[in-house]
Amino acid sequence: MIINVGIIGATGHTGEVLIELLLNHPHARITHLFNSGKGGRGAQVISDIFPKFKHRLDLVCSKPDWLKIKKDCDLVFLTLPHTVSMKFVPKLLSLGKKVIDLSADYRLVNPSVYEKFYKVRHEDKTNLKNAVYGLPELYRAGIKTAKLLANPGCYPTSVILALAPLLAVNLVDLSSIIIDAKSGVSGAGKKLEKEFLFSEVQGDFRAYKVNVHQHSPEINQALSKISGKKISVVFVPHLLPIERGILSTIYLKKASGAKLKAKSIADLFKKFYKNEPFIRIKPDGVFPRIKDVVKTNFCDIGVKDFGNTIIVISAIDNLLKGASSQAVQNMNIMYKFPETAGLL
Amino acid sequence: MIINVGIIGATGHTGEVLIELLLNHPHARITHLFNSGKGGRGAQVISDIFPKFKHRLDLVCSKPDWLKIKKDCDLVFLTLPHTVSMKFVPKLLSLGKKVIDLSADYRLVNPSVYEKFYKVRHEDKTNLKNAVYGLPELYRAGIKTAKLLANPGCYPTSVILALAPLLAVNLVDLSSIIIDAKSGVSGAGKKLEKEFLFSEVQGDFRAYKVNVHQHSPEINQALSKISGKKISVVFVPHLLPIERGILSTIYLKKASGAKLKAKSIADLFKKFYKNEPFIRIKPDGVFPRIKDVVKTNFCDIGVKDFGNTIIVISAIDNLLKGASSQAVQNMNIMYKFPETAGLL
Amino acid sequence: MIINVGIIGATGHTGEVLIELLLNHPHARITHLFNSGKGGRGAQVISDIFPKFKHRLDLVCSKPDWLKIKKDCDLVFLTLPHTVSMKFVPKLLSLGKKVIDLSADYRLVNPSVYEKFYKVRHEDKTNLKNAVYGLPELYRAGIKTAKLLANPGCYPTSVILALAPLLAVNLVDLSSIIIDAKSGVSGAGKKLEKEFLFSEVQGDFRAYKVNVHQHSPEINQALSKISGKKISVVFVPHLLPIERGILSTIYLKKASGAKLKAKSIADLFKKFYKNEPFIRIKPDGVFPRIKDVVKTNFCDIGVKDFGNTIIVISAIDNLLKGASSQAVQNMNIMYKFPETAGLL
Amino acid sequence: MIINVGIIGATGHTGEVLIELLLNHPHARITHLFNSGKGGRGAQVISDIFPKFKHRLDLVCSKPDWLKIKKDCDLVFLTLPHTVSMKFVPKLLSLGKKVIDLSADYRLVNPSVYEKFYKVRHEDKTNLKNAVYGLPELYRAGIKTAKLLANPGCYPTSVILALAPLLAVNLVDLSSIIIDAKSGVSGAGKKLEKEFLFSEVQGDFRAYKVNVHQHSPEINQALSKISGKKISVVFVPHLLPIERGILSTIYLKKASGAKLKAKSIADLFKKFYKNEPFIRIKPDGVFPRIKDVVKTNFCDIGVKDFGNTIIVISAIDNLLKGASSQAVQNMNIMYKFPETAGLL
Repeated sequence: MIINVGIIGATGHTGEVLIELLLNHPHARITHLFNSGKGGRGAQVISDIFPKFKHRLDLVCSKPDWLKIKKDCDLVFLTLPHTVSMKFVPKLLSLGKKVIDLSADYRLVNPSVYEKFYKVRHEDKTNLKNAVYGLPELYRAGIKTAKLLANPGCYPTSVILALAPLLAVNLVDLSSIIIDAKSGVSGAGKKLEKEFLFSEVQGDFRAYKVNVHQHSPEINQALSKISGKKISVVFVPHLLPIERGILSTIYLKKASGAKLKAKSIADLFKKFYKNEPFIRIKPDGVFPRIKDVVKTNFCDIGVKDFGNTIIVISAIDNLLKGASSQAVQNMNIMYKFPETAGLL
Repeated sequence: MIINVGIIGATGHTGEVLIELLLNHPHARITHLFNSGKGGRGAQVISDIFPKFKHRLDLVCSKPDWLKIKKDCDLVFLTLPHTVSMKFVPKLLSLGKKVIDLSADYRLVNPSVYEKFYKVRHEDKTNLKNAVYGLPELYRAGIKTAKLLANPGCYPTSVILALAPLLAVNLVDLSSIIIDAKSGVSGAGKKLEKEFLFSEVQGDFRAYKVNVHQHSPEINQALSKISGKKISVVFVPHLLPIERGILSTIYLKKASGAKLKAKSIADLFKKFYKNEPFIRIKPDGVFPRIKDVVKTNFCDIGVKDFGNTIIVISAIDNLLKGASSQAVQNMNIMYKFPETAGLL
Repeated sequence: MIINVGIIGATGHTGEVLIELLLNHPHARITHLFNSGKGGRGAQVISDIFPKFKHRLDLVCSKPDWLKIKKDCDLVFLTLPHTVSMKFVPKLLSLGKKVIDLSADYRLVNPSVYEKFYKVRHEDKTNLKNAVYGLPELYRAGIKTAKLLANPGCYPTSVILALAPLLAVNLVDLSSIIIDAKSGVSGAGKKLEKEFLFSEVQGDFRAYKVNVHQHSPEINQALSKISGKKISVVFVPHLLPIERGILSTIYLKKASGAKLKAKSIADLFKKFYKNEPFIRIKPDGVFPRIKDVVKTNFCDIGVKDFGNTIIVISAIDNLLKGASSQAVQNMNIMYKFPETAGLL
Repeated sequence: MIINVGIIGATGHTGEVLIELLLNHPHARITHLFNSGKGGRGAQVISDIFPKFKHRLDLVCSKPDWLKIKKDCDLVFLTLPHTVSMKFVPKLLSLGKKVIDLSADYRLVNPSVYEKFYKVRHEDKTNLKNAVYGLPELYRAGIKTAKLLANPGCYPTSVILALAPLLAVNLVDLSSIIIDAKSGVSGAGKKLEKEFLFSEVQGDFRAYKVNVHQHSPEINQALSKISGKKISVVFVPHLLPIERGILSTIYLKKASGAKLKAKSIADLFKKFYKNEPFIRIKPDGVFPRIKDVVKTNFCDIGVKDFGNTIIVISAIDNLLKGASSQAVQNMNIMYKFPETAGLL
């Protein structure tokens, strides 16, 4: 079986990576590429934008065309900036198309939280209610029947997967969670800002948006849902002088009186994720590195307890498991393709 | 006034950087360079080892020669591996020479702690007792009269300077300190190990020695001394794909009932360090970056409180304020040169 | 159709990349992985050597086992160091296996040239005579029936493809060819040598083996064969502070009296390679960059004439078109699979 | 003796590096910093622009103020973009100030060549006639009395120094010179353009302005002057994924009938530069690397002949010997300070 997919927002970094994945997918065919249509952008051959697609994909990327979408797309991926996706979703759904949105527009259940962090009114609260949060390892059942899928953020993916096994067994002092996260530059897309120049990034390292990053509410929402109690983490992201990858170092205290039933924390994680094709748990006391997950859909996790403190470290490719390949994994689930199709 | 200095261990990374500094120092002249003398190493012109010194320094580097040291050196720097320095110190002191040791051999007051972390018996407990810990901002008075100076480690320098102002006013829940530190590769010297190959480091990021690093006891000893109570921190170092620099992100809780008397935490830091030429405090909520301190003796610090949690971030050049330029700063103090001589 | 392949030398960098490619190949299945068997190396699970293969390939890599090869392999790839391959080839051929050798052992027709550059006697002159040089764009016909295929070197691939169209029409002053080539560090494999440490490579750039590199005779042999006259190029390789990729900048003079029959040099190249799936010619005066070919089997070429001087620049991924993916392309041709199978 | 210097254009990359050098200079004091005054730019504390100068230099940088210049500056450095410098020079000279201009505005003797490459009319042909080209190793005598000094370009410095010894003895076939140059990103200043983003530069390498770079006429002018005959080189610059440094690989043929009188080409170079403090010639067949010259005013040169072909490779720091430290060297000569003052 082959489905026809379109991409709106194909000229960005996430779109570029998504195209690459879909070109190698056995059950999907890219039928149309669109830009956001903003600012009167004209049509361009995609390989003129990304010369690396020359000889591989010769589609023209133009402003969204509803007739083409109606006729030629089963599924549409939105790789658009935050606040732009919600302008397209209602129409796509009304045409009966399935949608996987890689922006933040449908991730936060509470629109007032969205409005606080993204500084804009949420324009599509109706569909927001029905959006499914697409973290396969936790919400596979719901994803199977999703019509509108909100693909998780990169930092939240790395954090939620690292904490879910501990929260699920009530092992964590919920007030103690500290996340020290480090991301490659591609997390910022290809913004033309001074701080992302080679001469600024190379040889440097720094924190940014210290404890005020817009991914905090997404992390808090997901962790609170797992634990059943309100969680508010400390979250400090940093900018690494590399292109791809996130490593999150997470510190937490054990809940008082908590008892570990597995023979080690690593063992607990192994059991929790035992059937997951894309989660790899390191042996107790061994921790992951970014190199092993770059260009893959894997999330590698290492964990160890030191007396009352537990340290968990997770690594993903922010553009893949943190964005485009997780979107493909969700597509596989939605269409009952093998979950690893095009991803291993 | 000009003093004559020798360096034992001049062929290593720290030695190389120290030579560079001393070449520009108005009150010091390098008279002799020595290697460790181990393994029957012969004499070499220093510019054959480091071609960048060609036309700048034409000394021969040979095995230690006590006669030359006796005759031509007022002060000797030891830039030797840990456990090697203590083989040279007793003799140097007996010759009446002042010694600045950049290894860890004389940093830990308790030799059994040293022996646990460095896996070797301490051979010079007599002089260990009289060594002065050379962190100028905290121990300037003692440094002035030191005969044997133990130059601090790189991670400890970045951490102690970041925490001293808070510990001094009892603002910290002492059980809550978590240090997530990141260092450039030069922290490991120039070890020929697979993990330090370009192909392993470039594009990667990882934690190492998670909560078991040999700098933990040095950090704990210094913080405990400041606060007057036993402190045991959580300390996780990471390896950055850059050559130089350490950024330490430190998380802590306020002590219950603690009251801040300054108008902000940043203000508290500014007052604590108000006469320090090499400490720069960022405005409240602004945090430092590695680029601004590379190739300098500065320690830049940013701090902010978020309710009950305080986040402090410090940045230094690990080879300079974390090693060689701090050694020169100590020399300046020991000889009553202007403290910034050769360093600004 | 699925063929069974084995790899001898699977623990090296080229082996690692080849495994990655074959895991995604629709017509090949890896049945066995072997190391060189030297130095009494024991068996290891491949994902213990390369953690990134965890969950993807669980084969054990052990010393070569002739019974297993006989029974379970149609084709064997040799990703061994130069001078080691020729110890395995005779036996493999005698078992009726096809062999693709990625070392230099069967590339040079004249064994005395081999012996001069590789400082070792050639031990298998019999099979050397029958080896096919596996550059598909020039020698596809011979590759189809090859039993022993010598996969080209990385620099030679980048140079030969860049010069073949000009040499084929006698446009070149054969004494004028100057090749200024630049390669990422992976070209040196993962050798544990000081010069390949991160601290040495990062921020640096240098020439090496200036005009004495062992790829010179391979380049000269191939160019001479195309032109029908003896060619001896000037060849200077340089080491780039990146992991992957080669960019070769080639300067040459036009032969006196030569007449270009195409409307531009770029046009000449486009015609010469018009049916080639992996060669992409830039518009006249546009030149390629390494980023566009990294992680692909493409060779991108730009060319322009400036009066009497022609400048050609080519870019490949040294580990792919310069090694492992070209080997897969050759396999595709040998087994009549679609030539792009597993490669686009 | 201490002179008072001002800098116009202090907010750019070259200005930043020049400030750093002058802060360490024993005979110069920075009295004023100015921006270009364009676009109504206001006054800013220099350490707000470059936080690394905090605690080191607290001057305000404002638009040029002729009264202050008249009163407080002996010498003015112009670190302005090309075509902007010539708007300031006439007035500065009329005030009797000495000027060192780091732009290209006064480098090309023939204004029509300037106008062709910089696409703008030359507005100050009068002073252009009296400008001295500031390459100390070749033109020291003229520099001593210069009132307006044109500081050489980075590529030209690396090329002219590498070729002067050969041209001076008529050893070169003048039609054969090919220059394959590679520069770090800082050569482009801190331009906010997509091509200089970290995500574009890191892991990439490419040629640019192939044989049409604006430094070609400066190179041709200088080489022609040395040889006394018109020279037109082939010049291809490339962009390295590093911050600082230029390595130029230069290929040339020997003039027919030319006889080398030195015992080797390297020896010829050593004699030519025997009293030069900042030129280091490698032993015959040894070639320089960028790491050894970064952060120095040195030009390292290696050379070897291969039959009829000579290969010369030179390395400099483009921001120092290729710009700011060469300007300081020129200042030292103009004011009869020791030529190495503040530079070793």
